[in-house]
Amino acid sequence: MARVLKAATVVVASASVGALFPRLQAPVPVVRALSTLQSPPQVARAVWSLGRLNHVAIAVPDLDKARAFYRDVLGAQVSEAVPLPDHGVSVVFVNLRNTKMELLHPLGSNSPISGFLQKNKAGGMHHVCIEVDNINAAVADLKEKKIRSLSEGTQIGAHGKPVIFLHPKDCGGVLVELEQA
Amino acid sequence: MARVLKAATVVVASASVGALFPRLQAPVPVVRALSTLQSPPQVARAVWSLGRLNHVAIAVPDLDKARAFYRDVLGAQVSEAVPLPDHGVSVVFVNLRNTKMELLHPLGSNSPISGFLQKNKAGGMHHVCIEVDNINAAVADLKEKKIRSLSEGTQIGAHGKPVIFLHPKDCGGVLVELEQA
Repeated sequence: MARVLKAATVVVASASVGALFPRLQAPVPVVRALSTLQSPPQVARAVWSLGRLNHVAIAVPDLDKARAFYRDVLGAQVSEAVPLPDHGVSVVFVNLRNTKMELLHPLGSNSPISGFLQKNKAGGMHHVCIEVDNINAAVADLKEKKIRSLSEGTQIGAHGKPVIFLHPKDCGGVLVELEQA
Repeated sequence: MARVLKAATVVVASASVGALFPRLQAPVPVVRALSTLQSPPQVARAVWSLGRLNHVAIAVPDLDKARAFYRDVLGAQVSEAVPLPDHGVSVVFVNLRNTKMELLHPLGSNSPISGFLQKNKAGGMHHVCIEVDNINAAVADLKEKKIRSLSEGTQIGAHGKPVIFLHPKDCGGVLVELEQA
């Protein structure tokens, strides 16, 4: 649900995001109160809200076998395996009606999921990805709330949109990816 | 995607499901071929298909803290904690736009998630629940495909509908719950 800023009608003037990997230190969206600030003054926060669950990511030790399971056993609609060398994974998309599951297998020597599969040899749920309507506002807000992330700022994710991964230790044991909708 | 039965137009005559806990051995949906069987005869299978991702379940060691995280940090719409003593959990529903997350905390001495939290003290992703349009057909089909389940047949789940949990060892390390839509 969208956060409500009391006592101030606001407009969000997004900072320019020129770099692929904007850092938390970079300018963040500026919130301007259009109405007169009242007494006591409200500290305006950037507005952002959660949207859809974009996907549930599953790390799998055998991509062909996992793809066959979802396709042939569960009867799901699945994609071909898609290599994403920039992200160190090969992905199979499992389309459900309202969202998707993504089967991830390591690609290359520095895959971000190799460590997970070493600890979970049979595979398992790796992360959830939730869309947000203003990821720069989210990043600034979460930094203020002392939620750690796995990178200093957003990166371009597997769907070509800015994403950030929040630290599982600050999210109840769950690796949460936020993605710009 | 719905399975296609070649060479036979079929109608599914669902077996009566009188008991709360039908067993795999109980009558399963009967598939009758309306058209003449061709040579070689096709073995008709019950038709079922996956639907929506109903929820992602997260086991949490501190329900109030987890609820506060999703509500106050991520700004999600969350329910009050709902005790479900028959299922050994208290649940907070986190509503996203297209699906939901369910925060599960043990309730009572025989909670099905106590063991998980002993192994994962910070909490973590516990299972995914996917809807199916004909759970009895799914159970029969999956039994035929040698997919193990955690119970002999369906049980009534937390939403009052028949569900079955498939064994993670047969599902790529993921505990998969199927629920009648």
